[in-house]
Amino acid sequence: MIVKYNLLKKEKDTKARYGKLETNYGTYETPMFMPVGTKATVKMLTPDELYEMKAGIILSNTYHLWLRPGEDLIAKAGGLHKFMNYNGPILTDCGGFQVFSLVKNKKDITEEGVHFKSHIDGSKLFLTPEKSIEIQNKLDSDIAMSFDECPAASASYEYLKNSVERTLRWAARCKKVHNNPRQALFGIVQGGAYEDLRKLSAIETVKMNFDGYAIGGVANDGESKEDMYKAIDYSVPYLPDDKARYLMGVGEPADLLEGVVRGVDLFDCVLSTRIARHGNAFTRYGKINLKNLKFREDFTPIEDSCDCYCCKNFTKAYIRHLLLADESLGARLLSIHNTRFLIKMMEEIREAIKNDNLLQYKEDFMNKYESKKREVK
Amino acid sequence: MIVKYNLLKKEKDTKARYGKLETNYGTYETPMFMPVGTKATVKMLTPDELYEMKAGIILSNTYHLWLRPGEDLIAKAGGLHKFMNYNGPILTDCGGFQVFSLVKNKKDITEEGVHFKSHIDGSKLFLTPEKSIEIQNKLDSDIAMSFDECPAASASYEYLKNSVERTLRWAARCKKVHNNPRQALFGIVQGGAYEDLRKLSAIETVKMNFDGYAIGGVANDGESKEDMYKAIDYSVPYLPDDKARYLMGVGEPADLLEGVVRGVDLFDCVLSTRIARHGNAFTRYGKINLKNLKFREDFTPIEDSCDCYCCKNFTKAYIRHLLLADESLGARLLSIHNTRFLIKMMEEIREAIKNDNLLQYKEDFMNKYESKKREVK
Repeated sequence: MIVKYNLLKKEKDTKARYGKLETNYGTYETPMFMPVGTKATVKMLTPDELYEMKAGIILSNTYHLWLRPGEDLIAKAGGLHKFMNYNGPILTDCGGFQVFSLVKNKKDITEEGVHFKSHIDGSKLFLTPEKSIEIQNKLDSDIAMSFDECPAASASYEYLKNSVERTLRWAARCKKVHNNPRQALFGIVQGGAYEDLRKLSAIETVKMNFDGYAIGGVANDGESKEDMYKAIDYSVPYLPDDKARYLMGVGEPADLLEGVVRGVDLFDCVLSTRIARHGNAFTRYGKINLKNLKFREDFTPIEDSCDCYCCKNFTKAYIRHLLLADESLGARLLSIHNTRFLIKMMEEIREAIKNDNLLQYKEDFMNKYESKKREVK
Repeated sequence: MIVKYNLLKKEKDTKARYGKLETNYGTYETPMFMPVGTKATVKMLTPDELYEMKAGIILSNTYHLWLRPGEDLIAKAGGLHKFMNYNGPILTDCGGFQVFSLVKNKKDITEEGVHFKSHIDGSKLFLTPEKSIEIQNKLDSDIAMSFDECPAASASYEYLKNSVERTLRWAARCKKVHNNPRQALFGIVQGGAYEDLRKLSAIETVKMNFDGYAIGGVANDGESKEDMYKAIDYSVPYLPDDKARYLMGVGEPADLLEGVVRGVDLFDCVLSTRIARHGNAFTRYGKINLKNLKFREDFTPIEDSCDCYCCKNFTKAYIRHLLLADESLGARLLSIHNTRFLIKMMEEIREAIKNDNLLQYKEDFMNKYESKKREVK
């Protein structure tokens, strides 16, 4: 089996969809938030902790695993699932996002592929669509992503147009060499915030008949929220109903809601674990920083209503102590809470879609979530 | 109830004892290894992970908790157990070991107490026997330690003699002010590697009728193994059968065995988690460093026979990857393995005592353990 999306319900007032994704590792409901395990580990967490928080698909990264420990080693281990002992579906990003962030000079981006230097030792590397797919085939993830150009948020229309066209040629090359029968291959729609480019990219990518479609180029530094919403709105109308839609690199609660109402099924983001390492926690009333003095004697959990291991067992005062004492258990507990927070939020979003009251849910959620924004650190 | 030791069996060929320690949080078998949670957390691990590895008593530290978050905050939380959510017995060290390592000038050690500077912000602090006990009373640990002087390994006989006498006066002051009815108070025997000083210290400390007795001054930098064994041998004969004996700061497998055969019941050491953070694992064949190239393609657990979460789920190759990629899950998994290794070893030691074959066990264990010593990094 490869990944198969079943659309089960469209919400009445929005483009939101409730569906199920069949994978090699079971069937999962969508919309879904996918925790990120860049280097074959969701930072600080074990697979069991991921199961306990009801994670479904997790992400890993082609660029990082290519460099370390290498795709051949992971293949020898029996693939990424066995290597990291995750008994659930894994999506691998194509490496484009990382590689383009390492390009120093535009001439290093060629039709054949991308020249850049390793972030580990500065050695010269060359990544092509074929190589990205070869690596992903060996990693044996359940979903591979085709190799796309990720232009800067500041790129001109002219640049983006050429980039979209190149990404389409690269997508065709990816499709051609992909040869892991257990692995789905998703195409990526690019085109910045331009309606004609997104349309072109979506239509031409869909023509190649991928197993699912991603909307890329929305999580770059400097990308505005408005541009992200445009990118979705200009892409989604051309994506087929019977394939999953994945908005890459997005995981702020507000953006999950905006993405879902616009018809997105899958999201991923490092945010839930990254903000944890800085002492931040998602709550229904916005983000809080546990290092804040006001939590010094707060002997209540981050959220009374939360069912995560952190909230069921530890107080804000204790987590604050761990953070200030540089004890890594603090960031670990926050990583659990934050990731569960987004997964739980998606559970509620799915319920709201089924009940045709997503806009009400969104309004209620955001009213609460924004209510204490001035306190966010 | 406060801590009560029941001697159940003496091993036939050694001074080893099998017993049970009744505590406020259940009854535990001894000899026992106690994991160290200096700052109200066994580094990287949750209470549930400690239960899973069958930890009994854990240690925490008066000096560190006094400075951060402060004993009053922990008292407000309902005591250390509630603060850190550990539902098992906790022993607090008196802070002496830390404080004496911070003393710059011998004249800062006075009869009243010790002047030193905070390792966090350099502020001037003064710790006395009374203050140490007051802090421990508030922390509400199950076992408090009386405040002792911890002289350097290089201290002269003359210095040690005065120090032993002062520690006896301090022990009396500790006993006088101790007033937590749920908390046991242990006395500490000092005296370096001198038979007469250990004898004096032990006899006089026992006269004060503490709830248990520790042998201190054996885990300083520069302390030789021979001096450690002497310290035990010169102290144990004067300690009563009906109280637990605790060798402070010792946790190398060889030392656990040497301690047990000499009549020690309790051990603690940061080693199991500290060496984990450097990529080291205990094995039956000695310590190994998982960063070593030879483990690159080793898809077997650290120890096939180990029942810990790490060994049941992950390979050496994966742990090596985590360590090289700076992913904290690596050190966390090693912390689990190493701590479980020592706990498991103590389970076997207890069996050997019950079966009167401890010397055989010790020989077999050490033959294996030393067999690959040349490979230790």
